[in-house]
Amino acid sequence: MKFKIKRIELLNALNKVNKAVSSKSPLPILTGIKFDLQEDQLILTGSDADLTIQTTIDTQENILDVEEIGQVVLNSRYISEIVRKIDSDFITFSILDGSLTQIKGENSEFNLNGSKSIDYPTIDLSKTGTHLTLHSMTIKAFIEQTIFATSDKETRPILTGVNFKASGHQMQCIATDSYRLSKKVIDLMQEDVSFNITIPAKSLNEISKIIDKNEDVDLYISDRKVLFVFDHLVIQTRLIDGAFPDTSRLIPTEFAHKLTINTRDILNAIDRASLFSSEMNNIIKLEMDADHVLLTSSSQEIGSVEEDLSSGFYKGQPLNISFSAKYAANAIRATRSQKIVIEFTGEMKPFVLHDMEESDLLQLVLPVRTY
Amino acid sequence: MKFKIKRIELLNALNKVNKAVSSKSPLPILTGIKFDLQEDQLILTGSDADLTIQTTIDTQENILDVEEIGQVVLNSRYISEIVRKIDSDFITFSILDGSLTQIKGENSEFNLNGSKSIDYPTIDLSKTGTHLTLHSMTIKAFIEQTIFATSDKETRPILTGVNFKASGHQMQCIATDSYRLSKKVIDLMQEDVSFNITIPAKSLNEISKIIDKNEDVDLYISDRKVLFVFDHLVIQTRLIDGAFPDTSRLIPTEFAHKLTINTRDILNAIDRASLFSSEMNNIIKLEMDADHVLLTSSSQEIGSVEEDLSSGFYKGQPLNISFSAKYAANAIRATRSQKIVIEFTGEMKPFVLHDMEESDLLQLVLPVRTY
Repeated sequence: MKFKIKRIELLNALNKVNKAVSSKSPLPILTGIKFDLQEDQLILTGSDADLTIQTTIDTQENILDVEEIGQVVLNSRYISEIVRKIDSDFITFSILDGSLTQIKGENSEFNLNGSKSIDYPTIDLSKTGTHLTLHSMTIKAFIEQTIFATSDKETRPILTGVNFKASGHQMQCIATDSYRLSKKVIDLMQEDVSFNITIPAKSLNEISKIIDKNEDVDLYISDRKVLFVFDHLVIQTRLIDGAFPDTSRLIPTEFAHKLTINTRDILNAIDRASLFSSEMNNIIKLEMDADHVLLTSSSQEIGSVEEDLSSGFYKGQPLNISFSAKYAANAIRATRSQKIVIEFTGEMKPFVLHDMEESDLLQLVLPVRTY
Repeated sequence: MKFKIKRIELLNALNKVNKAVSSKSPLPILTGIKFDLQEDQLILTGSDADLTIQTTIDTQENILDVEEIGQVVLNSRYISEIVRKIDSDFITFSILDGSLTQIKGENSEFNLNGSKSIDYPTIDLSKTGTHLTLHSMTIKAFIEQTIFATSDKETRPILTGVNFKASGHQMQCIATDSYRLSKKVIDLMQEDVSFNITIPAKSLNEISKIIDKNEDVDLYISDRKVLFVFDHLVIQTRLIDGAFPDTSRLIPTEFAHKLTINTRDILNAIDRASLFSSEMNNIIKLEMDADHVLLTSSSQEIGSVEEDLSSGFYKGQPLNISFSAKYAANAIRATRSQKIVIEFTGEMKPFVLHDMEESDLLQLVLPVRTY
């Protein structure tokens, strides 16, 4: 293997495939990035077995100049640091002996011990299964607006992912940790597809971080994996096995109380009201009647906070309801709206919140009993 | 105690006194800030017993409006967060009952449990001892240029501080962890003073962070403490007991080898050469002769690096010398010079480095034996 490459192109490519690499992989070879140099392109692959990211750089004058094809696996941390820090516009790679790879810039020469590519697991990245095209920003939005509601506990693995269910030109994205729920509905323009899959939150998080351009993304959905294909990139993630719980009965449809409020006002009030509470137990209380909307919290040890939210508009019988400050703030932020509507059915019943237009996004939070 | 204060003034004052407060103080009252409200000023004090910082805000229209004098101690973390996050230009403080303090903004009301000021230790901040005036930027510079060479090990407490020795219109500032040494000499303009004290690195670090303006600082040096007085601030630190070792014999005065090199070139090369080395054992080697200056390092497991530093100018017999990448980089950076001179006496002898003018700052590094 021998080639010369523009530093900045390689650096960008490495930054992308690195997102799939875990430095603590139980399989040592997966702490590396596979370099597969062909006549017309360099293919870089990173994987942690669950998530695989592959990108290609095409042979082109002043970008990539291939002298001798070949393969090698190089430790992801070292190769990234070298390419980031080397003081040279172009870098040459050549295998010296076995998998010892020489990486040369203007004044720097690194000899990095690599691994043989034959030891790298074979990963099938074929574009099979149900095909679907979505805009990159649609994907980024539904990930960011639901992912925080997934569970971080491995006791029910299915809840550590976001569920995607498509049928009749619509796709529902749902995440829940059983204390709160985020639901986003997306209209599928052309396609009439049908699937019901759950993608790990960790994979979605990395995908959302990689998306930065306005472009179409091709999805290929099969039983055990999904492929996201765009812009010289292939991202493949495994799916979570098992049936996602039916949450449709959880979401109330009739409400007796309604609070309309400026998003920034309530977010700032929540932030202050949770100052005296610990990360573990950040419970705050809304006290609402015709004349007042108050957000309060108290800790016997530290003291109490009272926030006046009279800028909000409340309709309904007086109601006091306690809930997690963090869950409420996550849900409110996800609406991405200047004003929100919170609807309640009772003191111990889940409440829902959404923007003024009752849009395609719904957030549900369970209250907490306080004594 | 009752007063109204401009939020931003109080926030700035709290940010300063907070630097002396440790949230893990063995004396719980020291996790608080003492508010001492007098007719004409509010005095805020924070301390961790070693370092004490006190600042005052004067009574003034639209800054501080005193209604009823008094004292209270408020938890530093909570009061700072409240003042940072409260959405109001002015804040009123009033003691409700005992030391329960009400803190009120436009729409927010906090009731914070405080402590009685009588439980706060009495700290003597009297301006006694040898008096000295130094410019704030002189102080900031000698701290930043020496402090990194102090020891972080408690086995020899005296080495965890910077030694200041004054006599004959000169002050020497020396820090060493016995593997390297930083020495800065300062001319004292008017004063003919004499002292020999060692200030804890931790205190100096906080003092350097607080200094941000060009101004004169008054120092009051006594046997067990030093006071820094400037801009409504009094900072007092304890001194480290014991005699600082005599380091004058350590510093070589005659050299057989000399390398003159661009600071950025060698710093970048050191950075790259230490890519393959661990934090614990980041040893690099300079190989110098009439034709070449090379910086190399290698790790059997990972690989090797060779940096060509031929942009430097070397004079002397061929020499190979190994040393800590981190110690060398710290010392080079401290010169704050575009070009540096490194002078050697031999392979296993300490080497010194300084800027081109052989200025008031000298850095010494011990080499490391490699096999």
